[in-house]
Amino acid sequence: MTTPDNAPDSPEAPAGPTGVAAQDWATASADPQYRAAIVDLLGALAYGELAAFERLAEDAKLAPTLTDKAELAKMASAEFHHFERIRDRLKEIGAEPTEAMEPFVAAYDSFHRQTAPSDWLEGLVKAYVGDSIASDFYREVAARLDTDTRELVLAVLDDTGHADFAVEKVRAAIDAEPRVGGRLALWARRLMGEALSQSQRVVADRDALSTMLVGGVADGFDLAEVGRMFSRITEAHTKRMAALGLAA
Amino acid sequence: MTTPDNAPDSPEAPAGPTGVAAQDWATASADPQYRAAIVDLLGALAYGELAAFERLAEDAKLAPTLTDKAELAKMASAEFHHFERIRDRLKEIGAEPTEAMEPFVAAYDSFHRQTAPSDWLEGLVKAYVGDSIASDFYREVAARLDTDTRELVLAVLDDTGHADFAVEKVRAAIDAEPRVGGRLALWARRLMGEALSQSQRVVADRDALSTMLVGGVADGFDLAEVGRMFSRITEAHTKRMAALGLAA
Repeated sequence: MTTPDNAPDSPEAPAGPTGVAAQDWATASADPQYRAAIVDLLGALAYGELAAFERLAEDAKLAPTLTDKAELAKMASAEFHHFERIRDRLKEIGAEPTEAMEPFVAAYDSFHRQTAPSDWLEGLVKAYVGDSIASDFYREVAARLDTDTRELVLAVLDDTGHADFAVEKVRAAIDAEPRVGGRLALWARRLMGEALSQSQRVVADRDALSTMLVGGVADGFDLAEVGRMFSRITEAHTKRMAALGLAA
Repeated sequence: MTTPDNAPDSPEAPAGPTGVAAQDWATASADPQYRAAIVDLLGALAYGELAAFERLAEDAKLAPTLTDKAELAKMASAEFHHFERIRDRLKEIGAEPTEAMEPFVAAYDSFHRQTAPSDWLEGLVKAYVGDSIASDFYREVAARLDTDTRELVLAVLDDTGHADFAVEKVRAAIDAEPRVGGRLALWARRLMGEALSQSQRVVADRDALSTMLVGGVADGFDLAEVGRMFSRITEAHTKRMAALGLAA
């Protein structure tokens, strides 16, 4: 680390809007609002990973073969290890993981309840969509973080992509029966809609987190910037679905 | 490895009844019946681990807190990694994992269907009982294996014991409400009964595996010796349950 801790505006540092991106955790967390935002963020990511573990393990039951089951189980297990890393980081910074996760339980649980796949292909599309949206979000948010938190987020991000097998399978199913594509396209749209709706609920509820996400400072944040972030993620999703043959 | 590959009866080698315990895989697997037995054994262990992953992940839903959920999810994830090791070994020896697992799917699935926990404490007792019986079986069987297969089985065995947290929780629940002990004692007995019943079904169906388990050779095996192995495992189970305050 050659970046001085207290020089957020120095020209050589690629500082984010608040300058936090050039600071390490010790410096950045001196601001109680930033600290609260990161505890929220890590709590949200941790529970997201734990819930993903649970749902992927559940959806593995829909697998038509033991090999397919093992593939989804592998993704589930990877999500669990992400959860462990994030939870351990919460402990490291002196936060109680359960307390940090609690505010986000309802949103994730509703999302998963509303989007329980009814068959294996829906399960695969969900695994792929979920993994991709999560990666996009991790990437979006990484730039706004202090160097230590960013390192953790990028390490987890590096370990995503376990859903690639799903792409092959879905493509093959559409090739074999093109009618399937229409149904799955609607399904993918519903997944994204539900994800956005739950995210917006979280944004509305969690001021510190939302402010940090848009690089805002003090109280109040630019709702339009959150909207733009969601737009970018939605756009990337739409492109991915089109590439998969799921243009709805 | 200082043990000569082809000296099953040399005095310094603690050879099992068939002498296979002093041989490596290359030597031992020249006997087609031994090879078939090991493919069966690894298939049975692999599917057992995959099914355990699935059930523990499912039972994690019963957890009263996020910390408890994470503990059971951790066990599930550990079982998945055991599955991966055993499946990879099947591939290494040129066996098709799915084919090797297939004959054991019905027995494990029935076991889990018959023993779906109705609450968190039943889930904990099942996690602990399942983990312990599996460890006992791995230990029993290890002595009868060629050196390479034994190494794998012992490596997996080394990574068991993740259910220890369950012991604390169950003990605390019984202390708080002694009446709970009676119900869980019956439950533990039912778990063991169902496990024995499914194992006996497997033993009856899979000749090569059963022969190997009792250290027999050629065709036919000593059913009484299988019975003794099951007795030892049952006895260890009974002692563990008593130690846990679950004397039924």
